Amino acid sequence: MTSADDRVTLVSVARAAGVSRQTVSNALHAPGRVAPETLERVLAAVGELGYRPSLAARQLRTNRSRTLGLRLEHWGGGISGSVLDRFLHALVDEAQGRGYRVVLFTADDDAGEVARYDELLSSGQIDGFVLTSTHHGDARTAWLLERGVPFATFGRPWPAPGSGQPVPTDHCWVDVDGAAGTRAATEHLIAAGHTAPAYLGWPDGSGTGEDRRRGWARALAEAGGSPAGALELQVPDSTAAAFAAVTDALTSASAPAPTALVCASDSLALGARGAATRLGRSLEVVGFDDTPVADAIGVSSVAQPLGEAATLAVDLLLAQVEAGPEGPPPPRQHLLAPRLVLRSAP
Amino acid sequence: MTSADDRVTLVSVARAAGVSRQTVSNALHAPGRVAPETLERVLAAVGELGYRPSLAARQLRTNRSRTLGLRLEHWGGGISGSVLDRFLHALVDEAQGRGYRVVLFTADDDAGEVARYDELLSSGQIDGFVLTSTHHGDARTAWLLERGVPFATFGRPWPAPGSGQPVPTDHCWVDVDGAAGTRAATEHLIAAGHTAPAYLGWPDGSGTGEDRRRGWARALAEAGGSPAGALELQVPDSTAAAFAAVTDALTSASAPAPTALVCASDSLALGARGAATRLGRSLEVVGFDDTPVADAIGVSSVAQPLGEAATLAVDLLLAQVEAGPEGPPPPRQHLLAPRLVLRSAP
Repeated sequence: MTSADDRVTLVSVARAAGVSRQTVSNALHAPGRVAPETLERVLAAVGELGYRPSLAARQLRTNRSRTLGLRLEHWGGGISGSVLDRFLHALVDEAQGRGYRVVLFTADDDAGEVARYDELLSSGQIDGFVLTSTHHGDARTAWLLERGVPFATFGRPWPAPGSGQPVPTDHCWVDVDGAAGTRAATEHLIAAGHTAPAYLGWPDGSGTGEDRRRGWARALAEAGGSPAGALELQVPDSTAAAFAAVTDALTSASAPAPTALVCASDSLALGARGAATRLGRSLEVVGFDDTPVADAIGVSSVAQPLGEAATLAVDLLLAQVEAGPEGPPPPRQHLLAPRLVLRSAP
Repeated sequence: MTSADDRVTLVSVARAAGVSRQTVSNALHAPGRVAPETLERVLAAVGELGYRPSLAARQLRTNRSRTLGLRLEHWGGGISGSVLDRFLHALVDEAQGRGYRVVLFTADDDAGEVARYDELLSSGQIDGFVLTSTHHGDARTAWLLERGVPFATFGRPWPAPGSGQPVPTDHCWVDVDGAAGTRAATEHLIAAGHTAPAYLGWPDGSGTGEDRRRGWARALAEAGGSPAGALELQVPDSTAAAFAAVTDALTSASAPAPTALVCASDSLALGARGAATRLGRSLEVVGFDDTPVADAIGVSSVAQPLGEAATLAVDLLLAQVEAGPEGPPPPRQHLLAPRLVLRSAP
């Protein structure tokens, strides 16, 4: 983008003509509102300084707003929400580097998000969208695909849970291979001498959750075990729920207590670590997302390459936005490898 | 805002006319690019459906984009950065409720941020700005004030450090009374039997840092002591630096070890708690910002009312943006009280 120093702006025209910014705008777009002598002074300054028409006016000709849209999810309170905030920081940095801004809006559900898309598209104030939190039966991607609107998702388009269908590839997406992360975590624990690491995950129905569980199950199978031979717990993504479930598991009279635990999130890992500490029991815990909390409490965790994900999401989206008359390229997908960050308790 | 269901959009016109969104846009704004029979079909659909002109076109008449701008700071890595992210979530929610979107951009410094303002203002794509991280000699607020651009800051305009000058009130701002927070923390520790709680803060030169230190000093004075009679440590806002400084303080042969510590941030509190735990020493710690990390490690902390701050920032800004011909109201300021959240170590 051009720096402020080497070009004429509406503000500099206003200064030269000794009027307000609003008056310059009126002179250019609603001259009837401006007194004739003022109009003359403003237009003289416009001519002298060589002021270019506004982006809003140019936009009507180029149909490009250099703005990308993203729904900001409601604040979920805490630990795991920071992942999407870190993605947002990387996305805004990346977009800015390519000369684009990011406009944020909120919505309560898919339908609300689609309504926002429709408003922004109708206004001509948007070139395309980045979507997060993809899920089975995503009404947003269907709506955008149907209308040929440029978009890319951070997250795969998940097929129906348990359907065994392949992941659809009819649009651009970038995602992190969660199964590879939990697999690396489980392999690490097995190599450290834990024969059957347990798994603490979310209830069924989450594509992301099933992906993360899959890596644990695969590592067990490859080590000659099976998920059936290991403990598996399911709780909502809450530290308190994890604390209760792991307390139960560590004090159960009917089953051997786990010595190692792979968790679907750092929120769950925090609860698990807390339960073990409270009971004075040894439990090796690995979380997911490598949040500041995992670092603070000294828990190993799986880190997502969020900067790389943002770069690729912008690449995929701008390839569509900036496509020439031959149309956008065929959809592409990127599945990124996460990284296991090892820590020991302080 | 109107929902997508009860109004005619460019997309519904495209569907009715059996053409692409781009073609409708061309038909309306660059009819020369569209074949005559297509143009006729599109304009017939526009008429039948009663389609309103686009926001970009209307904007040229109303000079209102219903968009507010905010610089997103670069990701600072971790604990304290989550405060501004939580403010952002509240701000986007609040703006959406008032019918405004939030556009994000990045910049490396004040001058870069001003260059972004200038671009957005020249394009007519912005109604006003919210600024964060105010500091002494803030070039951004001076630039905006000079041009009469609507804005509000989250953070006070700080006078020169140590100047003893009153905080300027020539623009709208909302801030949290940091001194009241550290004062409440110090009073709590004194009431719990610690005669001279120590302070772990940042190096001089930060308005926010000096404000937080002031509350600690005032509480000591009111309890009959003085800052000179208590330990004071200054380190950059890093957990590692806090760990080192507090380890030194707890093992010093030349001075009595502190039993309680008020910290300027949760990053510092985490390092302090880690040092005490490592040495097996008892040290009551209070942090600042009530981040997920403070909750995870069971450290008391001062919570900022971020939702209320965002609501007031939007109020202050929109009072200027939506001002009638009589002009904007005089600048107003809000100093909000924080809340001490007490926790005990797990």
